[in-house]
Amino acid sequence: MTRGLFITTEGPEGAGKTTILQMLIEKLQADGVKVLYTREPGGIEIAEQIRNVILDKNNIAMDPRTEALLYAAARRQHLVEKVEPALKEGYIVLCDRFIDSSLAYQGHARKLGIDEVYSINRFAIDDMMPNLTLYFDIEPEVGLERINKSSEREVNRLDLENLQFHQDVREGYQILLKRFPERMYKIDAGQTIDVVLETAYQKVKGLL
Amino acid sequence: MTRGLFITTEGPEGAGKTTILQMLIEKLQADGVKVLYTREPGGIEIAEQIRNVILDKNNIAMDPRTEALLYAAARRQHLVEKVEPALKEGYIVLCDRFIDSSLAYQGHARKLGIDEVYSINRFAIDDMMPNLTLYFDIEPEVGLERINKSSEREVNRLDLENLQFHQDVREGYQILLKRFPERMYKIDAGQTIDVVLETAYQKVKGLL
Repeated sequence: MTRGLFITTEGPEGAGKTTILQMLIEKLQADGVKVLYTREPGGIEIAEQIRNVILDKNNIAMDPRTEALLYAAARRQHLVEKVEPALKEGYIVLCDRFIDSSLAYQGHARKLGIDEVYSINRFAIDDMMPNLTLYFDIEPEVGLERINKSSEREVNRLDLENLQFHQDVREGYQILLKRFPERMYKIDAGQTIDVVLETAYQKVKGLL
Repeated sequence: MTRGLFITTEGPEGAGKTTILQMLIEKLQADGVKVLYTREPGGIEIAEQIRNVILDKNNIAMDPRTEALLYAAARRQHLVEKVEPALKEGYIVLCDRFIDSSLAYQGHARKLGIDEVYSINRFAIDDMMPNLTLYFDIEPEVGLERINKSSEREVNRLDLENLQFHQDVREGYQILLKRFPERMYKIDAGQTIDVVLETAYQKVKGLL
């Protein structure tokens, strides 16, 4: 049996990633492609336990490096227990957010350092790097506006404070695009949903 | 206030580390030295939660790399919440087992690779490496015999199977001694307890 393909999707908030991914999966399945959608911790018991430690509201003393190590640990377990078995069965695994989210959010925007966060994630991923990463690019202002529209509320002070953070996240992704040009494929998510979907679909089909 | 000193103790099972450490602490306290004894996870809530995930008997599917990342995460939090504040208050912090245990046990004996386990631990420790590491050296046969004597039982099949593992652990420590000659200090734990204690005591006093 042919080994499957490991594809990850990335992007700032409001890039429409989730919507596109759902449509992409339906399109691929209609073609008869075996697709597995996942997202860490993905129902993997050990990864869920780790995520609970991260998200526990009492854990306000959690150091950013502890958190980054815990995300890497959950990533490892999800990879070994869910992604790898599916790849062995020939599935196309579509994973929403993976290593590049850690690098852009924690490494760049939260200033832990892209190289440093990469070092622990390289350990976590070992030889299971994605074959392709679809990066959905959106300007933070447009992304935040989309989020606000969908939740039917006005842009508030918190959103504006967050703008700098979202700009830093996007800047992080731009650095990663230059660093991993062969693995990462940028799609302008400011285009119509049909164009974005078709671009993603063609890119994935090209690999099959 | 002068910043304290961060001292770790290491060694294979049965080196008598725990006994020596207790006596060393009493000797230092009798000299009026402010000493804090600790051992990961050391009562730090977040580190304890992480340790619970590691030790949960239902988590048989845990990958060795996940485990190594979790140990590094617990290490980080214990360091930030317990060791660093004590050092700031001028304490001599004596920590039983630290980075070198991960390198010798997981990196070398469990074959994850010393360099690889070092990379995630360097991230965890950042700029808080120990000032001194007392390594209590013992031949695995002698160490296992000591353990068996103290638990008043015969050497069994499991102990013999474990012998190779304990030899690998000790071999790992020998590699580390060569790699970190300035930080690690080897003490022959096969000597009488008085000699071992006095050697450790003089080494620590020399740093004060």
